[in-house]
Amino acid sequence: MKALVFNRHLQEIEMPLPQPRSGEALIRIRLAGICNTDLEIMKGYMAFQGILGHEFVGEVVSAEEQYWLNKRVAGEINMGCGECSYCLNGLSRHCQNRQVLGIQAYPGVFAEYCRLPVSNLHVVPESVPDEEAVWIEPLAAACEILEQFTVHSHMKVAVIGDGKLGQVCARVLSQTGCRMTVYGKHPGKLKLLEPFNIRTELVKKSTESDFDVVIEASGNPEGLQAAMMRVKPRGTLILKSTTHHTVIPNLNPLVIHELQLIGSRCGPFEPAIQLLEKKRISVQELNTKTFPFADWKRAFEEAEKKESLKICLDMR
Amino acid sequence: MKALVFNRHLQEIEMPLPQPRSGEALIRIRLAGICNTDLEIMKGYMAFQGILGHEFVGEVVSAEEQYWLNKRVAGEINMGCGECSYCLNGLSRHCQNRQVLGIQAYPGVFAEYCRLPVSNLHVVPESVPDEEAVWIEPLAAACEILEQFTVHSHMKVAVIGDGKLGQVCARVLSQTGCRMTVYGKHPGKLKLLEPFNIRTELVKKSTESDFDVVIEASGNPEGLQAAMMRVKPRGTLILKSTTHHTVIPNLNPLVIHELQLIGSRCGPFEPAIQLLEKKRISVQELNTKTFPFADWKRAFEEAEKKESLKICLDMR
Repeated sequence: MKALVFNRHLQEIEMPLPQPRSGEALIRIRLAGICNTDLEIMKGYMAFQGILGHEFVGEVVSAEEQYWLNKRVAGEINMGCGECSYCLNGLSRHCQNRQVLGIQAYPGVFAEYCRLPVSNLHVVPESVPDEEAVWIEPLAAACEILEQFTVHSHMKVAVIGDGKLGQVCARVLSQTGCRMTVYGKHPGKLKLLEPFNIRTELVKKSTESDFDVVIEASGNPEGLQAAMMRVKPRGTLILKSTTHHTVIPNLNPLVIHELQLIGSRCGPFEPAIQLLEKKRISVQELNTKTFPFADWKRAFEEAEKKESLKICLDMR
Repeated sequence: MKALVFNRHLQEIEMPLPQPRSGEALIRIRLAGICNTDLEIMKGYMAFQGILGHEFVGEVVSAEEQYWLNKRVAGEINMGCGECSYCLNGLSRHCQNRQVLGIQAYPGVFAEYCRLPVSNLHVVPESVPDEEAVWIEPLAAACEILEQFTVHSHMKVAVIGDGKLGQVCARVLSQTGCRMTVYGKHPGKLKLLEPFNIRTELVKKSTESDFDVVIEASGNPEGLQAAMMRVKPRGTLILKSTTHHTVIPNLNPLVIHELQLIGSRCGPFEPAIQLLEKKRISVQELNTKTFPFADWKRAFEEAEKKESLKICLDMR
């Protein structure tokens, strides 16, 4: 099969089909999404080597259980050891010995096929097209916020960042009925939030600082500082994006204003799938461009552009 | 009266008695403690100018209400505007327009007298000597942790730092029955925790990383990094000390391990007073040395020494 392998550089390589292990399914990839984490990995993050990619929708071509055959699926990306207290308590995504699809010691999905434990798979409902299903993994990451913290409808909530992560966080959190403002640098991206009655502001223009909850989803080193300035004393700051801090953040406001800071990473797939199935949320407008697999070089160039949102690779 | 005034340097100055405003009492200082915040202010923190000092026990010499006359008191240090939502909800210590005793736009207690609103005063019970009463303010800061977060007895808790703040945090939190370890650099300071059955470790020696809760109370720029390494995934990190971060902290573990970070500052005086009155907690062994007011220069030299804990100025 064809696969995009990262080893200092990203290269297309002809490889043998993955050999599923016990409990794993072989999956033919239909559509895969390029995430900012992929771009970070290509700059050295996580020191990963192997087939890149973790956002996908595909169909099962072989599995031990008949049930899974030919099912269209999305897949959770963390593979726990299955034995530690985290795994036994449903938090295998925090297993200390976990492998992570296309991120840590486990081959990813920028390929014609991948393998995954069937316990990681979720059937994609028929009403959800591939172009939405590829968003399930990042949507789950946005849903994770609501697993960690209760957002009430009376709360004033800000999302810092108008990129992919900020867009899905804003869409998911605005389901709570909270008073939402998204701060960004790109008028074109902010415009995509208007149909959902989400207030938007250019980040430079505003000085508001009385938010109950601020989500940092910009991925910029300055994002945390901006987020700290906007949250009110005793408020909550949710950190969604990992970043290389080149600026020394002044963390004293955390102590002085007694802020609560919550780190938030991968999330549960079920609520994400339901949001799409019930048409409670719209994501297709975030698909900037989809390239055939053969055009992967152009796809990655496009993904690096500031004006791009989601770039997909099509293996159908 | 004699007073220690900070204005680029600390100087002893002869000044007129403070003129209490409406609602304020005039207090004769008995004993005042030197806090690390005072030492930070002398390096430029908060850009404060005026009479330094905020930890004290004293007696009321004049007040509008007879009740307060001759009462021995400790005093809360934040003066809110009395009108904003924080002040009206009992959180005047987060008032955006607050003044802070000896820290922000309000003269402090390294003097023969100070003035304070009677609403900030707490009567010190007879059974609590001055040498313990001077600890009420820092003890309240330790009690604040339990106002913000519930520490259960089954939890594994670490305190980073064996200085004054670490010592009182360890004493207060161990009241919950939790499994407590204090990490420090000074064997002599760690030894002070032994009578309370608190486990201690030299910070360099340990690699334990499965704490449910870690309190950063070291005041070192490296303290936050050390704290992040010791807390387990989904655990809680409580930040007690403000510091000038000279090291760029790698905050990615916050996101990857979905940690909760809680900034924590000043706290409620009542539980602190009760801990002392009921002899639930012992602090006198933390008083390294007490100097007469005239020897303030030696007192500050002593306070700067690494082996010192609390240094007091005696105005009795």
